[in-house]
Amino acid sequence: MTSSDLQEQLNLKAITLLQEDADKIEKLIEVQMENLATRYCPLYEEVLDTQMYGFSKEVDFAVRVGLVSELTGKLVLSKLERNLAVLYEALNNKAKQ
Amino acid sequence: MTSSDLQEQLNLKAITLLQEDADKIEKLIEVQMENLATRYCPLYEEVLDTQMYGFSKEVDFAVRVGLVSELTGKLVLSKLERNLAVLYEALNNKAKQ
Repeated sequence: MTSSDLQEQLNLKAITLLQEDADKIEKLIEVQMENLATRYCPLYEEVLDTQMYGFSKEVDFAVRVGLVSELTGKLVLSKLERNLAVLYEALNNKAKQ
Repeated sequence: MTSSDLQEQLNLKAITLLQEDADKIEKLIEVQMENLATRYCPLYEEVLDTQMYGFSKEVDFAVRVGLVSELTGKLVLSKLERNLAVLYEALNNKAKQ
């Protein structure tokens, strides 16, 4: 294996792992969106914030070590942040009702 | 550069970054230990717990992506956890006084 093959392989592994972790948080957001009307759990926000923080540290590390570009890191994070913002807006609207 | 040179270089970069982050948390612990008697800030524990959580996610990622061995990851984390335990014990003893 050449060094560029290895670099490619590691980059792919890094983004695959990050995407898996992003998907898990995505699932948590979806579940909370679905349960908005019925079984709202107030701890969910705290859990999501903690998960997001941990995930952002993973992404940062992947960028710092050079396996993921800064742009890719930002895109992965901002997609999740947008979905989280949608959830929080829905929660806010519900609280106002 | 051969692929094993690259692997070595990335492994070294990963452990260097982790060690830097561990040192930052170590510093936070030291500062709190020094200030135990004078300027105790109750938020410090929460900050430290959050930092430790984020750091453990970094270490996990480095292990999963294959840049750091599981043993090294565990050693880096457990050293910090021991120091944190010493701090918490000192805080506990102080609270009992």
